Amino acid sequence: MQQDTKVTWRNRLHNTIYESNTVAGKIFDIVLLILIILSIAVVMLDSIQSYHQRYGHIFHTIEWTFTVLFTLEYILRLISIQKPLLYVASFFGIIDLLAILPSYLSVFFIGAQSLLVLRALRLLRVFRIFKLTHFLTEIDFLKMALSSSLKKITIFMLVVLFTVIILGSVMYLVENGENGFASIPDSIYWAIVTITTVGYGDIAPATPVGKFIASIMMFIGYGIIAVPTGIVTNEMVNATRFRKHGHETCPGCGREGHEHDALHCKYCGALL
Amino acid sequence: MQQDTKVTWRNRLHNTIYESNTVAGKIFDIVLLILIILSIAVVMLDSIQSYHQRYGHIFHTIEWTFTVLFTLEYILRLISIQKPLLYVASFFGIIDLLAILPSYLSVFFIGAQSLLVLRALRLLRVFRIFKLTHFLTEIDFLKMALSSSLKKITIFMLVVLFTVIILGSVMYLVENGENGFASIPDSIYWAIVTITTVGYGDIAPATPVGKFIASIMMFIGYGIIAVPTGIVTNEMVNATRFRKHGHETCPGCGREGHEHDALHCKYCGALL
Amino acid sequence: MQQDTKVTWRNRLHNTIYESNTVAGKIFDIVLLILIILSIAVVMLDSIQSYHQRYGHIFHTIEWTFTVLFTLEYILRLISIQKPLLYVASFFGIIDLLAILPSYLSVFFIGAQSLLVLRALRLLRVFRIFKLTHFLTEIDFLKMALSSSLKKITIFMLVVLFTVIILGSVMYLVENGENGFASIPDSIYWAIVTITTVGYGDIAPATPVGKFIASIMMFIGYGIIAVPTGIVTNEMVNATRFRKHGHETCPGCGREGHEHDALHCKYCGALL
Amino acid sequence: MQQDTKVTWRNRLHNTIYESNTVAGKIFDIVLLILIILSIAVVMLDSIQSYHQRYGHIFHTIEWTFTVLFTLEYILRLISIQKPLLYVASFFGIIDLLAILPSYLSVFFIGAQSLLVLRALRLLRVFRIFKLTHFLTEIDFLKMALSSSLKKITIFMLVVLFTVIILGSVMYLVENGENGFASIPDSIYWAIVTITTVGYGDIAPATPVGKFIASIMMFIGYGIIAVPTGIVTNEMVNATRFRKHGHETCPGCGREGHEHDALHCKYCGALL
Repeated sequence: MQQDTKVTWRNRLHNTIYESNTVAGKIFDIVLLILIILSIAVVMLDSIQSYHQRYGHIFHTIEWTFTVLFTLEYILRLISIQKPLLYVASFFGIIDLLAILPSYLSVFFIGAQSLLVLRALRLLRVFRIFKLTHFLTEIDFLKMALSSSLKKITIFMLVVLFTVIILGSVMYLVENGENGFASIPDSIYWAIVTITTVGYGDIAPATPVGKFIASIMMFIGYGIIAVPTGIVTNEMVNATRFRKHGHETCPGCGREGHEHDALHCKYCGALL
Repeated sequence: MQQDTKVTWRNRLHNTIYESNTVAGKIFDIVLLILIILSIAVVMLDSIQSYHQRYGHIFHTIEWTFTVLFTLEYILRLISIQKPLLYVASFFGIIDLLAILPSYLSVFFIGAQSLLVLRALRLLRVFRIFKLTHFLTEIDFLKMALSSSLKKITIFMLVVLFTVIILGSVMYLVENGENGFASIPDSIYWAIVTITTVGYGDIAPATPVGKFIASIMMFIGYGIIAVPTGIVTNEMVNATRFRKHGHETCPGCGREGHEHDALHCKYCGALL
Repeated sequence: MQQDTKVTWRNRLHNTIYESNTVAGKIFDIVLLILIILSIAVVMLDSIQSYHQRYGHIFHTIEWTFTVLFTLEYILRLISIQKPLLYVASFFGIIDLLAILPSYLSVFFIGAQSLLVLRALRLLRVFRIFKLTHFLTEIDFLKMALSSSLKKITIFMLVVLFTVIILGSVMYLVENGENGFASIPDSIYWAIVTITTVGYGDIAPATPVGKFIASIMMFIGYGIIAVPTGIVTNEMVNATRFRKHGHETCPGCGREGHEHDALHCKYCGALL
Repeated sequence: MQQDTKVTWRNRLHNTIYESNTVAGKIFDIVLLILIILSIAVVMLDSIQSYHQRYGHIFHTIEWTFTVLFTLEYILRLISIQKPLLYVASFFGIIDLLAILPSYLSVFFIGAQSLLVLRALRLLRVFRIFKLTHFLTEIDFLKMALSSSLKKITIFMLVVLFTVIILGSVMYLVENGENGFASIPDSIYWAIVTITTVGYGDIAPATPVGKFIASIMMFIGYGIIAVPTGIVTNEMVNATRFRKHGHETCPGCGREGHEHDALHCKYCGALL
């Protein structure tokens, strides 16, 4: 009987912490998200020198408070789950640990609390909350379109990578190691900055030949952006069509491509 | 009888000021738009130091003239409408007030007339004029496509935001607070400049690891621009298809929404 | 009889100069294009200081040779056409005149030969040659897709323009006229550099609030590029569909959307 | 009999080196790819001054080892193929030679080993390995979509090129050869940097008129990116549609190319 109560207690805790379909669960998730955002804000503000000098000790206290709270949460998660090791080894389990570890490490290693920025990873929890809402189908749609574009995008990225390595190396020879093209890796870095149209300007060609090659590179970068865009758009159009029409076959004429709310075949009128 | 005349007079004023389907209304709208553009031009020119020193007093006079004119217009709008408070609290009502307030405030607070740049918001009136023309369907089309993309774009923007926060924080650690990466907010600012392919170059990585992470970031930014583009394009293709084909009515059951290649109603099987 | 010969002679000259369907006409067009490219190359090289000092007098001679040749061509065009004034007032007529005028003007006004760069406009002739080849349908396709996107693109560009004016003005206030934001026009220039993701970095925000607004602006610019792309892509998809299917109606079932090579209706099999 | 054994031996060598459908062939290809990557890595590291000074002699030894290995591979390729001259003159034959030549040239010409970066071209072999995998259809898809976009993209690029030449020349006149616009080629280089939205900022307009023209240029560059994207996307949508539907054969006349919603053959009217 006591066992039962305990199970119920653990069950309820589990539902609150891991699920979001109860009122308590929803409140828990939202409070947690606010705490995460606040703790990240403190880490950010603390990284600004002038604030650190003035309010450093206050930030220090707040950070430890958050660490204690998150540690408590971590322990509760371990208690309320049936297979704690599975949670510890899971994606979110590792992130949750990474969010509290730096504070404890900072006791032994000075500067370790800089790693607290890893708490930003906890923000990914927001997608868990989204999952319950009507954002789910949208996430699925994006996932579907992107995963079917993956192979084509990989090939495209390889081509870009080779272009960048080869033209970056050529620029190293052309600019003769000067004007910031100090080494091949630096020249490749410049090539990436150029082909992606970022264009910092920290490295820029100075010789006429260098400028000519750079111009070609910019045109390439400007033109081929069309390729990944085309790939993703195409897959999205396909995903939409699939979602709408599916693959049901008409018993009358054998044709496919009916919308999911169709009762009769749109070609022969037979009942589906 | 006199009341009637007054109503007519107010009605006519209302039509001229608020509507654009009479000749007087159209002239009013166009004159107003020209005045708005001129008043903005004066504020712009006045903001250039050398012009301000030479023609400052002339600009001052012109600005006050425009303020008086716009105040007059504001009063006329209040008089000619049936529920003045509704107008005052409306979007355009607030903008119209914001366009005249800074001048009066500048009597008490020096420098307040800088806020006159808010007059630029009045330019949004141009869309009211567009509404009457054949641009209306185009605006509706864009609105429809964008509003149905909204959820997907939100998710995409969240993913970009998280990438920027996490990679920006990592760069702060990697570049060790130097080379312009003075704080986490500054590093995130740099990350946004990089992932959106803007690339000012005011902050740029100097360490090899930093350059490597920056390169990855540029590739991400260059590649994922495909996602919002794909979303919007897909929704536009859908919007076009719906606009073209969605409105045929079934003679059997009277329902709409048949695909353009349908021969039979998908609900009742009747021949279309 | 003599008149006839003269007409024939003028006709032949006209065909050679204005048309490209004879061998002589094709050779004329290609030689002309090469001369245009060479003349532009000379103007370009002459604009480089070190070359100008060393080879200035040679360039000068070549430029005058080209001017004499192009003047000759201009006179021949006037002679061989039936209505010379129509040619003089036409688009290409004005460009052809602009290509020779600067040389003559440079006799009276020093520096006028800089305007010789306008010869670059003559390069547009290349599209006349293209017209005869199979590029014509492609040009028509692009024209069709772009002209039907025009209205939507106009609205989009207006929205971008207003965003740039309003946010540029706000930045002028926020950065308080410092860090390069010297005037409202300068701030708007910066806003355009930012929203189009060009990002020179000659003007960059320095205050935290300024960086925050700049970040929002970059996200806007990065996200809304999807809109014109979506518009143009959508119109191209439509243009392709239209080119393929047209608007012929089936005499059997009254349906549209047949491909241009269809002999029978794809829905009912009736002869089209 | 001995001849046969020799043929078999050469055949087996040929299969290992040129094909990838045997286990030995696959291992050969992967080992070769790793060696290529390693050799490029060494060339890259050697280009960094500080590494070159410390480990220069080690890099030198490794480079020669790779050169010997690649020479051996080149000889084996010559031996095992039936028509060696065809291989020598082929695309990959030239690249393979370019990958070993610089080392031997460096004996006679100091600095020639810089050309070893050309080894990066050997990375293109990775696509040969891809060919055997399921990436093949994706590569074909991309090739098909890009080759059918080629003409339209060419026209687009010509238009951009002319815009850049004309507006670059105008900027040279407007900025009067100052602020980095030292010559027309330099101004055109700036125009390319601007219209492709790269925006280094090494050259930037300083005069109001220059900034105005630059703004127009940025808007052009920002807006017309939609054109190549639209072209490629459209061709991809078409390629997908063709791949999906284009291969059904008519039972009446045996012709292919029916649309996916066709019930009757569009050529003979037979029921599909």
